Amino acid sequence: MTDFRERAAALDAADPLAVYRQQFVLDADMVAYLDGNSLGRLPLRTRERLASFVRDEWGSRLIRGWSEGWTELPVEVGDEVGALVGAAPGQTVVADSTSICIAKALHAAASIVPGRSRIVVDAGDFPTDRYLASHVAAARGMELVTIERDSEGDLTDSLDAVLDERTAVVLLSHVDYRSGALLDLAALTDRVHAAGALVVWDLCHSVGVVPTALDAAGVDLAVGCTYKYLNGGPGSPAFLYAAARHLPVLEQPLPGWWSADDLFAMADDYRPAADARRLLSGTPNVAGLLAVREGAAMAAEAGVDAVRVKSVLLTSFAIDALDVLAADGSPVEVVTPRDAARRGGHVTVRVPDARAVTAALVDRGVVPDFREPDLVRLGLAPLTTSFAELHAGLVVLRDVLAR
Amino acid sequence: MTDFRERAAALDAADPLAVYRQQFVLDADMVAYLDGNSLGRLPLRTRERLASFVRDEWGSRLIRGWSEGWTELPVEVGDEVGALVGAAPGQTVVADSTSICIAKALHAAASIVPGRSRIVVDAGDFPTDRYLASHVAAARGMELVTIERDSEGDLTDSLDAVLDERTAVVLLSHVDYRSGALLDLAALTDRVHAAGALVVWDLCHSVGVVPTALDAAGVDLAVGCTYKYLNGGPGSPAFLYAAARHLPVLEQPLPGWWSADDLFAMADDYRPAADARRLLSGTPNVAGLLAVREGAAMAAEAGVDAVRVKSVLLTSFAIDALDVLAADGSPVEVVTPRDAARRGGHVTVRVPDARAVTAALVDRGVVPDFREPDLVRLGLAPLTTSFAELHAGLVVLRDVLAR
Repeated sequence: MTDFRERAAALDAADPLAVYRQQFVLDADMVAYLDGNSLGRLPLRTRERLASFVRDEWGSRLIRGWSEGWTELPVEVGDEVGALVGAAPGQTVVADSTSICIAKALHAAASIVPGRSRIVVDAGDFPTDRYLASHVAAARGMELVTIERDSEGDLTDSLDAVLDERTAVVLLSHVDYRSGALLDLAALTDRVHAAGALVVWDLCHSVGVVPTALDAAGVDLAVGCTYKYLNGGPGSPAFLYAAARHLPVLEQPLPGWWSADDLFAMADDYRPAADARRLLSGTPNVAGLLAVREGAAMAAEAGVDAVRVKSVLLTSFAIDALDVLAADGSPVEVVTPRDAARRGGHVTVRVPDARAVTAALVDRGVVPDFREPDLVRLGLAPLTTSFAELHAGLVVLRDVLAR
Repeated sequence: MTDFRERAAALDAADPLAVYRQQFVLDADMVAYLDGNSLGRLPLRTRERLASFVRDEWGSRLIRGWSEGWTELPVEVGDEVGALVGAAPGQTVVADSTSICIAKALHAAASIVPGRSRIVVDAGDFPTDRYLASHVAAARGMELVTIERDSEGDLTDSLDAVLDERTAVVLLSHVDYRSGALLDLAALTDRVHAAGALVVWDLCHSVGVVPTALDAAGVDLAVGCTYKYLNGGPGSPAFLYAAARHLPVLEQPLPGWWSADDLFAMADDYRPAADARRLLSGTPNVAGLLAVREGAAMAAEAGVDAVRVKSVLLTSFAIDALDVLAADGSPVEVVTPRDAARRGGHVTVRVPDARAVTAALVDRGVVPDFREPDLVRLGLAPLTTSFAELHAGLVVLRDVLAR
């Protein structure tokens, strides 16, 4: 791995985003944090912002905070996150968990095409996506249809085989949580639309690391989480996007008071907002929103295009090194697509005893993620992962696999 | 009001809970914070806990935090909040917003009595309760039936008139958000059960200030928020209780991965947990949970019974003083029940130009709450409101009304 050490040093020296790493809390005991795709590191500015919020806003403004800015946060921070995924203002909110947002998006989409009977989901999608698609279909008397990715991580053929006039909604994950395979969002959106159906994109593993153009692609609805590449902290609120053309007509399944036309009118009859607030439900968590705002601002400042450039360099570096390990006899197999255009920000390997390997790595200060049954995910967060850090982590992986 | 000043001093001197006020962030510029029933003050211990969480857990443990305790927080803090409302462990979770929890509770209750067709709600209930009851009824093909409180704030007669074999679920707020009227939770639960229906109690305005015995009363489901008398901060996560007898069978409408039997199995098929985790949906907000834990611990330490004793003294003081103002010709009318056993922790007055009066009070450092169209709510939080503070607020109210 000596060549790789030199290559890492050269890449770090040339990295225009290298400056960002020092803007996060770093732990001297950590050899390599390769899980920024699961929970991103803590930005220094977020630590300061949360402290000032607690001290100067909650602590001293108390209830007046709601009329001094908190009330607007779900839509304001929504616009800020929306800008990272190609959404013009007024279509995105930040609130609730990703699971809740998925349920809202699926029900909302189905409400727009009431005559259709099928919800389509990737059989290998993240559990909460599958569970909720299944539940929403059952709750609405619809049929759940599953599709499968091919060996390249694509599912165009499988999708084409089921799209027809019965299809109401297709739920797709932009980047597969296991393999890291990246779908062609624009092309698949077109295919779904050609069948007269709506698409809901789950951007959990792409927001902040893969450029996405929701408006330009004509996407209907999208969701994603903010605690990965947006560094919002554990359980920070998710985002939900609905295209402006759908907002005035969609029906969402959790129409709490924050979705009403006039929040404080306390009206007798429910009248939904015609704008993005229509997507809200209950009182949003203010601290969570402020943390998302800081992380989204860093991503915006760095620029998602620049982040993507570094992301491709990071994943290419990892794959090249892992290939050398495999060629040297290490029991490691890269399952992430080798075509950079077809993968997101993490690299996944299949190894024997993946659970034990993950535990051994963590013991040695290298933190990846284990995914049942035999996968280890290496999350590479361009704002915080240096090439030297990645190299150090791969050296430890080599040693652990050589035991 | 001279008599009241002396009475306030005597009550403060004799107050066994007076020590708690110094455990919160206080603002020298605030004459009287009378909105602890809307957003509670910030406990000093919560400020410290959030700082240590950000620094020592999120910042340095990162993803490892989930296996080092965060994952258990929704049920652990659930048990801690449950203990404040008479719920044995294993039946309560803290997660999501109150609105989301209300939707879950209503759907879950309806799923337990599938042959019944009606959801009953108080026509004067808080908007989100009414909106969600209406939506859940429509989504399930059920009928919404409204009942009304009488001039005393009770609704037993109105409820009796509609309870029959068609009734599936009755949603009731323990303390009315406007008048502060307190319902007899045990007696009404019995009446609902006598009709073979289930009851969902909204404890938003009673948790932490009115002793409640959910298990003893045989309540089916309950929800409540944690940012009022539990001081969890703006938009802190809500709680959801389901009686142990219902947990293995209820169906909830947002069955995300956190409600599954094995969170990290990432199983092909959804198998709901048989315990309280069945009530969860997506990834919970860790900072919010930790803030709720601190506030709940303070309420537990003080004891809800002792809190209630002081609460009754506070509301009695306010009502007596307001009656004197009214007798002296001030245009103020107490709408909260005069029988202490029939009111919660806030006192509401009807005044002309209530919105302008509220604004004038806030300008003078007295912060109550305005509620459309003509109500001003005085929230009295026993852990933070002193009698001297209440007195000072009432003096300013007198002066504002005398203009």
